[in-house]
Amino acid sequence: MFESAELGHSVEKAVYDQEVPALREALLNAQFDLGAAKKFPVIILIAGLDGAGKSETANTLNEWMDPRFIQTHGTSEPSDEELERPHMWRFWRQLPPKGRMAIFDGSWYHWPIYQRASGRIKNPKMDQALDEVRRFEQMLIDEGALVLKFWMHLSKAAQKKRLKKLEGDPLTRWRVTERDWKHFEMYDTFQEIAERTLRHTSTAAAPWIQVEAVDPRYQKLTVGKTLLEHLRLRLEHPVPPAPVQAPPSLPSLDGLSILKSLDLGQTLDKADYERDLERYQGKLNLLLRDKAFGEHNVILVFEGVDAAGKGGAIRRITQAIDARFCHINPIAAPTEEERAQPYLWRFWRNLPRRGQVAIFDRSWYGRVLVERVEGFCGEGDWMRAYGEINDFEEQLVNSGGIILKFWLSISLDEQLRRFEERQNSPFKRFKITEDDWRNRGKWDAYQTATCDMLDRTSTEIAPWTLVESEDKRFGRIKILKTLCQRIEAGL
Amino acid sequence: MFESAELGHSVEKAVYDQEVPALREALLNAQFDLGAAKKFPVIILIAGLDGAGKSETANTLNEWMDPRFIQTHGTSEPSDEELERPHMWRFWRQLPPKGRMAIFDGSWYHWPIYQRASGRIKNPKMDQALDEVRRFEQMLIDEGALVLKFWMHLSKAAQKKRLKKLEGDPLTRWRVTERDWKHFEMYDTFQEIAERTLRHTSTAAAPWIQVEAVDPRYQKLTVGKTLLEHLRLRLEHPVPPAPVQAPPSLPSLDGLSILKSLDLGQTLDKADYERDLERYQGKLNLLLRDKAFGEHNVILVFEGVDAAGKGGAIRRITQAIDARFCHINPIAAPTEEERAQPYLWRFWRNLPRRGQVAIFDRSWYGRVLVERVEGFCGEGDWMRAYGEINDFEEQLVNSGGIILKFWLSISLDEQLRRFEERQNSPFKRFKITEDDWRNRGKWDAYQTATCDMLDRTSTEIAPWTLVESEDKRFGRIKILKTLCQRIEAGL
Repeated sequence: MFESAELGHSVEKAVYDQEVPALREALLNAQFDLGAAKKFPVIILIAGLDGAGKSETANTLNEWMDPRFIQTHGTSEPSDEELERPHMWRFWRQLPPKGRMAIFDGSWYHWPIYQRASGRIKNPKMDQALDEVRRFEQMLIDEGALVLKFWMHLSKAAQKKRLKKLEGDPLTRWRVTERDWKHFEMYDTFQEIAERTLRHTSTAAAPWIQVEAVDPRYQKLTVGKTLLEHLRLRLEHPVPPAPVQAPPSLPSLDGLSILKSLDLGQTLDKADYERDLERYQGKLNLLLRDKAFGEHNVILVFEGVDAAGKGGAIRRITQAIDARFCHINPIAAPTEEERAQPYLWRFWRNLPRRGQVAIFDRSWYGRVLVERVEGFCGEGDWMRAYGEINDFEEQLVNSGGIILKFWLSISLDEQLRRFEERQNSPFKRFKITEDDWRNRGKWDAYQTATCDMLDRTSTEIAPWTLVESEDKRFGRIKILKTLCQRIEAGL
Repeated sequence: MFESAELGHSVEKAVYDQEVPALREALLNAQFDLGAAKKFPVIILIAGLDGAGKSETANTLNEWMDPRFIQTHGTSEPSDEELERPHMWRFWRQLPPKGRMAIFDGSWYHWPIYQRASGRIKNPKMDQALDEVRRFEQMLIDEGALVLKFWMHLSKAAQKKRLKKLEGDPLTRWRVTERDWKHFEMYDTFQEIAERTLRHTSTAAAPWIQVEAVDPRYQKLTVGKTLLEHLRLRLEHPVPPAPVQAPPSLPSLDGLSILKSLDLGQTLDKADYERDLERYQGKLNLLLRDKAFGEHNVILVFEGVDAAGKGGAIRRITQAIDARFCHINPIAAPTEEERAQPYLWRFWRNLPRRGQVAIFDRSWYGRVLVERVEGFCGEGDWMRAYGEINDFEEQLVNSGGIILKFWLSISLDEQLRRFEERQNSPFKRFKITEDDWRNRGKWDAYQTATCDMLDRTSTEIAPWTLVESEDKRFGRIKILKTLCQRIEAGL
């Protein structure tokens, strides 16, 4: 796989000096066009062995282009903040917005490769990790990103020569550590793992590009020219929309649906409600103070039609939790900054640390509900979102998250009653807008989208709980009770 | 995930009888249009628990449409023929050509699910298997197939009721075996595995469609209508070509390439040649008669420019092998039947059993060589082929295959000399055509394509061997020697 990157490629200084000015100008122009159009981000990965000129190449790209619009990220040890989130959190934080570039030195490949090399994981687990990486990159590409992956290669002989040369010079001797020689002894192991990695993650949309790392001039010019070619081509050829495809909904033959099957007549009288409220709020408070909770966090998703009682249900939960350990995220239309990122980005940025509770009042499911129904995103976009959301939630669960997703259901009549009540109350009038009335007209479309969502995202690791909320008391207690049960089971 | 498929969906007989005639007519028309256009195949998977009406549904689809153009495949125990090939071989054999449909009852999901349920594999290995399945289905989709995946679901209560009912009737009692009750006891385990499977393999292009299996009328009408909708939509909206993208080749900065770096001046004199020929042919013969070879097979790929000496090299190998255990596949333009299938199909069909040697005189690499250079396939097609080929070869290796890939290299001058020699020899004149002369004009384009191929498909599990063939004797011995070494290492 690395044959072409072991030929001793080099570029003479005169040639380099002649080529660089034109390349810089072209790269700067392309970078300007990228920033002006703000249509897609550019994600550049620079991976490979230690000492293969990764950071030097990153520095050169920064030097050649306008560094204000390039973020460069190393793969140092994760911070304590990062250790308390899913492994990919740190990379989500670092994603560039549309119109900008980011360079990742090491990147999300670092972890699987080093885990495998150290023997801590075997091939099946490594393949699992690489598959996750493939899906992540596919999501970036589907969201419009240009992803360029460079693998910097040194042959074993070249690597040895480099280390010897550094050691032989008193001025550079300090740069060669015992660790460097240890890694050198593992060269063959690393290469085998690297080959497997490249083989499993080289896709048509994001192929690996192997670059020989012996001669820095050759290496830099190759990366610069390749970047320019890909950038120019993408600026000139925007990605076309996904092919037309039938949505995943079943034909409605008998009028039955999971939402219609709910028994909305269930009620709870006031005395029972107050007794249960006290009981489950107390239990919740105790559970969250359990020592074992320090290894977990709780992520709550609330979805439902307007006026279904999300706010009231959330308050009954937060009443039981120390406010320092609980954060509510009310989700409205995305900000400008959020629109320049993959749609899941704004949820990743608000993931809680361990020992915390994060409440999402509306959530990432907006993609397959409001965005689908209102046409805010393409058909291909919401159709792929089910899988992306399942992947996202799997990462949350794998890092200790306990996810609960509540769908609050009321009837069309009850919604009308609550709307009118709101309009007639001076304290609640602000809660009702034109949009709410308009959404009522799309009731059926929202019901279809909701049923599809439940079918495709109620998984064994993160099931939906359907909450009959016609009677607010009944709904709130069902939520609190479910929450206590799931946390208890999860600890 | 199965909530909507546990609602007790049903369709009354009167409704069914009224709907079916129109549906049948529409399905027949769509089937006719599919067959007339011959643009894509339709692959229908019907999976789910035992007793969930899978075969009944398949039979109904056959009844409703013209069964001459539908192949239906069960997932019975693999034959001894199938056991000696990679696991997916049986399914490749069963793929429908463009314009036709195939129904798979069980399909490629059967193996991972049952292996996991029996505890023979754990989640990482199951995920590995599911990832393979995803890639296989993505390949089918990229090759144009319409893939529809139905999951037939019965709730635990419905499953129990069904078994009890069968047992209660003396006429059907025999249908309920001990195995059925054993599987019933494992219901929860199966469901959990099914959920994981569906979650990992439901993609935007091929989402799972869950169908409740309690009422056969509901089940059949749902499948029929869904099939019709997808079929009609695809007939009306052909899949657009892949987005424009830069090819994976590096810019040529110093003129070096892996092909140019070969030392074509290497020769072998006649005496040494004859000695080595005898030695390695003898060794090869012995190796292939080794008992351990019964667990393996050898797959040889020969590629190279015209007149590079592939035929002569192949003869030196076959001379050493019992003809009953060796099959040569000369690869020319695909037949009409082959063009109606994914491009790898014609190689899958010729995979050897264990204990056999298969020689491919040109191969699947035509996709990234002649098809790329001559524009016989789209840019997106050959760019994704590198990954597909690596996946293919991984499956060969995993099932005991020893793959050797030889690239025979000669200079442009030597090619001219051989062409002229052929033209002037009455015995060899037939070996040279107009095409050969025309291809010489595209020498550089072929060299670029070859270098990309070597970089992207010379893997740790199936490396390329570059053979300096300017001197035929040198080349032939290098091939024989490499062959013996690799077989020896592989046994």
